[in-house]
Amino acid sequence: MKAREKHATGAAIDVGDGAVAREAALIALDWGTTSLRAYLFDAAGKVIATRVSTAGIMNLPVPAEEGGFDAAFDEACGVWLSEAPSLPVLAAGMVGSAQGWVQAPYVETPASAQALVAGIVRVRAASGAEVAVVPGVLEPGALPNVMRGEETQIFGALGESGDEAQQTSLIGLPGTHAKWVVVEGERIARFYTFMTGEVYAALCAHTILGRTMKHPATPDTAAFLRGVNVAREQGCVGLLATAFSTRTLGLTAQLAADEQPDYLSGLVIGHELAGLEAALARRDVALAGCAPRLIGAEALCERYRLALGAFGCAGAHLVRQATEHGLWRIAVQAGLVAPR
Amino acid sequence: MKAREKHATGAAIDVGDGAVAREAALIALDWGTTSLRAYLFDAAGKVIATRVSTAGIMNLPVPAEEGGFDAAFDEACGVWLSEAPSLPVLAAGMVGSAQGWVQAPYVETPASAQALVAGIVRVRAASGAEVAVVPGVLEPGALPNVMRGEETQIFGALGESGDEAQQTSLIGLPGTHAKWVVVEGERIARFYTFMTGEVYAALCAHTILGRTMKHPATPDTAAFLRGVNVAREQGCVGLLATAFSTRTLGLTAQLAADEQPDYLSGLVIGHELAGLEAALARRDVALAGCAPRLIGAEALCERYRLALGAFGCAGAHLVRQATEHGLWRIAVQAGLVAPR
Repeated sequence: MKAREKHATGAAIDVGDGAVAREAALIALDWGTTSLRAYLFDAAGKVIATRVSTAGIMNLPVPAEEGGFDAAFDEACGVWLSEAPSLPVLAAGMVGSAQGWVQAPYVETPASAQALVAGIVRVRAASGAEVAVVPGVLEPGALPNVMRGEETQIFGALGESGDEAQQTSLIGLPGTHAKWVVVEGERIARFYTFMTGEVYAALCAHTILGRTMKHPATPDTAAFLRGVNVAREQGCVGLLATAFSTRTLGLTAQLAADEQPDYLSGLVIGHELAGLEAALARRDVALAGCAPRLIGAEALCERYRLALGAFGCAGAHLVRQATEHGLWRIAVQAGLVAPR
Repeated sequence: MKAREKHATGAAIDVGDGAVAREAALIALDWGTTSLRAYLFDAAGKVIATRVSTAGIMNLPVPAEEGGFDAAFDEACGVWLSEAPSLPVLAAGMVGSAQGWVQAPYVETPASAQALVAGIVRVRAASGAEVAVVPGVLEPGALPNVMRGEETQIFGALGESGDEAQQTSLIGLPGTHAKWVVVEGERIARFYTFMTGEVYAALCAHTILGRTMKHPATPDTAAFLRGVNVAREQGCVGLLATAFSTRTLGLTAQLAADEQPDYLSGLVIGHELAGLEAALARRDVALAGCAPRLIGAEALCERYRLALGAFGCAGAHLVRQATEHGLWRIAVQAGLVAPR
């Protein structure tokens, strides 16, 4: 009856008559700053329904102190929980930060999936459901690094193959704050954050470089790779210097207005990879010898694959559904769900 | 009579009864993107009056196609020219760019003062005055560099001493687009542009780093030098990575909110100097062995002097009135004025 009532009131429902919720075994949330993705898993670990909203922790439907987290949670998962109130719930991402629903203190590197599970913090929703929140990871040091959400994706990507307990591998997560993570023996050993996406956006929108740019209808791969190679070859002078060439190459008729956005994108990503290469080299790891997994939007990961190729790194490849796999894996390891 | 009329109408006049204009020998303009500075020189090369306005070439009182340059020029210099209509006029800066009053094509490096004089382009004002416009300098290459206005300041700084015809020297011009210029035998041999000031402003105002910052009442030199040293020691990983430490050091209670602006300023300037050091090293020049002249706002130059000290470069020193000296020197060399 409840399901039919919800249908009648027009609440956002993407499951039918409860059949989906009846076979569900887990609700898992990827709850970041600007979005909330809710996944419904069956007992085999298959995603059987997904709900996406813009109710990130900085964009709640009502303020946090007025129950914003509960409101967003109900909006995303209320339908499922009304059908199956005892479903376990796991959440990862900024929801566990100081500005989140409950603070799940960082686990320090080297961080294993077991350590993440041990660091889970629980919060009771107004509806009665208990939400288990995955902690982020902190690498202490002179330049500390933090992640929230990526740790779950990383363990999702690692879960793909089963034979890497002794291996060292490199995982890249392009985006606003790109992360590069060194995994040793299935533990997050260390990682680097590059403000690549955010700095690129700021350069385009809030510096002189944006004034002469025209955004092309389709991405200009040649201009992108030109920028990557300039960063690779002239990298030592730094992004503050090479970025200005976007303008001077335009002034001297060597770079068209509609080539400038992709050229600058190539420069910024190229400097990221040059910095990564240098950081790895300090530990005697050659970027060119790595076959990094990439996690993120497919088109962006493809850009990174091309840019990595310019650095002699040929084996980069995209991992799909790392978030879903990671949430499932941590839920299983935490005993929230018993896989069928 | 004319002068008294202008007094009567309240036009902006900062000379008295014409005595100043009567002893004047040259009008020289530093005409940039956002400001116009007009200097009145006597025949000994002394500045006897100055007028400053916000009528930069992107901020003219009326649009350029409606006589905006004439209007700004009259507003700045009309009083002087009404007293002494035959005064020669020299202008340097963005006024000679493609968006300026008249385009004075770039002189290529290596560029001497003679080459700048030979590249002067003249424009006739509506009032009848002829304005001689100094060209900018272009360094061609894979990463071209351009300057307009700085070339005049550089020759003003060089003019300070008379014994450097055979020397190599380094001149820094901090600011929105900081320039570092290598002068060989009184010629601008090559130079680098770093978007330091503009990128710092964009990072503070348009990225996550600004959200946790509080600007202190007085600059925090210790936080600034901490940032410089992080950039110097960890520079190879690049600004995209080190910048994020402004946030993570805050998150881990190692950097207070009111330390963050100066720390980030130190990082950005430190990366500029690390890039400069690397660029000089490729030509076997050690930054630490240089005693650079600095041209610019005094407080900013003092920051650079401190930052250079962290790079082992102890002899940096401020050059005052480089713009005025450079305008005078070029005017003399161009035969616009005969020094007394």
